[in-house]
Amino acid sequence: MGPHPAVAAIRLAVRRVLHDILTEQSTEQTTEQSSTGQSSDRTPQERRPSPLVLVACSGGADSMALASALAFEAPKLGIRAGGITVDHGLQSGSDLRAEEVVLRLRELGLNPAESIAVTVGRDGGPEAAARDARYAALDAAAERHGAAAILLGHTRDDQAETVLLGLARGSGIRSLSGMAAVSGAGGRYRRPFLQLDRQTARKACMAQSLPVWDDPHNADPAYTRSRLRHEGLPALEKALGKGVVEALARTAQLSRDDADALDAWASQVEASVRDAAGLLECAKLYALPPAVRRRILRRAAIEAGAPAGSLFARHIEEVDRLITGWRGQGAINLPGKVVAQRQGGRLVIRQG
Amino acid sequence: MGPHPAVAAIRLAVRRVLHDILTEQSTEQTTEQSSTGQSSDRTPQERRPSPLVLVACSGGADSMALASALAFEAPKLGIRAGGITVDHGLQSGSDLRAEEVVLRLRELGLNPAESIAVTVGRDGGPEAAARDARYAALDAAAERHGAAAILLGHTRDDQAETVLLGLARGSGIRSLSGMAAVSGAGGRYRRPFLQLDRQTARKACMAQSLPVWDDPHNADPAYTRSRLRHEGLPALEKALGKGVVEALARTAQLSRDDADALDAWASQVEASVRDAAGLLECAKLYALPPAVRRRILRRAAIEAGAPAGSLFARHIEEVDRLITGWRGQGAINLPGKVVAQRQGGRLVIRQG
Repeated sequence: MGPHPAVAAIRLAVRRVLHDILTEQSTEQTTEQSSTGQSSDRTPQERRPSPLVLVACSGGADSMALASALAFEAPKLGIRAGGITVDHGLQSGSDLRAEEVVLRLRELGLNPAESIAVTVGRDGGPEAAARDARYAALDAAAERHGAAAILLGHTRDDQAETVLLGLARGSGIRSLSGMAAVSGAGGRYRRPFLQLDRQTARKACMAQSLPVWDDPHNADPAYTRSRLRHEGLPALEKALGKGVVEALARTAQLSRDDADALDAWASQVEASVRDAAGLLECAKLYALPPAVRRRILRRAAIEAGAPAGSLFARHIEEVDRLITGWRGQGAINLPGKVVAQRQGGRLVIRQG
Repeated sequence: MGPHPAVAAIRLAVRRVLHDILTEQSTEQTTEQSSTGQSSDRTPQERRPSPLVLVACSGGADSMALASALAFEAPKLGIRAGGITVDHGLQSGSDLRAEEVVLRLRELGLNPAESIAVTVGRDGGPEAAARDARYAALDAAAERHGAAAILLGHTRDDQAETVLLGLARGSGIRSLSGMAAVSGAGGRYRRPFLQLDRQTARKACMAQSLPVWDDPHNADPAYTRSRLRHEGLPALEKALGKGVVEALARTAQLSRDDADALDAWASQVEASVRDAAGLLECAKLYALPPAVRRRILRRAAIEAGAPAGSLFARHIEEVDRLITGWRGQGAINLPGKVVAQRQGGRLVIRQG
């Protein structure tokens, strides 16, 4: 008798990602070898210790399932498996909680298994500040341990919520593209469960008798994501049918590909719409498709010093009207004290 | 004292669209003149009767507000204003209802003002079938009366609902792009209220003491759109904040521009990835950004006879794996008996 279907599903998802990591590592080694002219009579195992993959684990069902699957699959592929839990220090007793998670990670056979305490700031709201502190700690842990990758337990349900949060910003398809399966410096972060639903992770924990911890924040209606999870998304499913989560996750992938292609297009043509002095020529910008033109304008504003997070679609639309609806408008103020104005058929965007 | 702000808002929205229509008409005339070498000593009024603009009116608040604004603005611009109401015959007494709407349109001074009875089929579900019958009737009325345009009362709220319905399909950014401000053959259909909220239309009716009729279908939970309107969208607003409708409408516009640009890109490069015999070359397709490649594959499948409405993202993904994940797969069956297969480095997509 094989494992419970949910356990099989989480293991398969992790196995695929570990395979990817090994493939990339061997490609890197081949490249290093050929570039250094090193002989290949030693096996990769001799030349390098077996790679370490860490799991970021809150103790919740998603990341406990992920930790269990990593512990099961990694040894079979000659990969060392470790786990990190981040103590955000936002609730009393969170340090004890974190120590408990570390014990569970050790019980699964993960080594290293450690807890890292962070100080959460206030920038960008409570959720963003906690996330920034968490990733900084994970980055540092990966460096310290020389980890090849860090696995994150985000599920398809998290992805659907992220798409809706992006939708609420109304700032275009990049914000609809959710979380990437591979992200961070050098593709450090991997999300094996992005195509898996939350229910499967929970079932896998039950089937393996893994105790899980439900973060009270996840049910706290003070948090936008929590309201979305417990009220917004269920209501949307009731109206539109059960396939909504899957449709949102698919939208994320399609939007990501589309946004990547359009960004690439904008990069390619950007040089061709600048004059010898490097200034943007309005006539040439006018001839571009609006989607490409606005991306070039956005890039130019960010290059001039406008903070990406404060630059909204309406700002770019206003700058765009200097090109498409020119009637002698004055300078346009953008975030970060950046000013955009049209001068002699050129668009000048600079910090003023 | 000027009109009520809501009345001013609906009139401004209609005035802008009427201006657009007049500008386009005069451009067309200029083009005709110069191409026929006709002398321009006659004024446009002598050469052509003043243009007719129709409003499609259900008797609901949105389209009654639109009819009232058209009746007010059209004469000032030398435009004739008429109205059409479509009797879908789906409720008993709908014919009397339609006659009542015609009377109200006449009272507003619209001429012609007429009701057209249609027979609603079953294709694509009740909402799609009613829509198809309605647009066929409106098209015929526009031809019969020689109308320059038909105004439709869709508001920003309708647009937000349409985006969510598209999101539920999970088929990419084209389905997120909602309704166009200008659509149909020759740009016949115009939606002046696409940036205006439903509440404004309703207030404008109240301020002008216009009786409005609330279609019971709009509150019938058997209809997806109705569930979305009365449950899904309010829950989403509660979770994400009041700006959701505006954000969704903005997403529609941005997605439309992005989808247009990517479609144009796919059209441009398509010829370059075909060999002398017109077959798609896998190696060249492989080199394209995924977003562009998949659009080319989708176009090829539709050209081969696959019905666009039955062709889903997962179909195209499977065909795409013949390019990106080739391991000797067999032929792939697509809707409309279309078959895609890889043969000697070429992708062959045809009805078989």
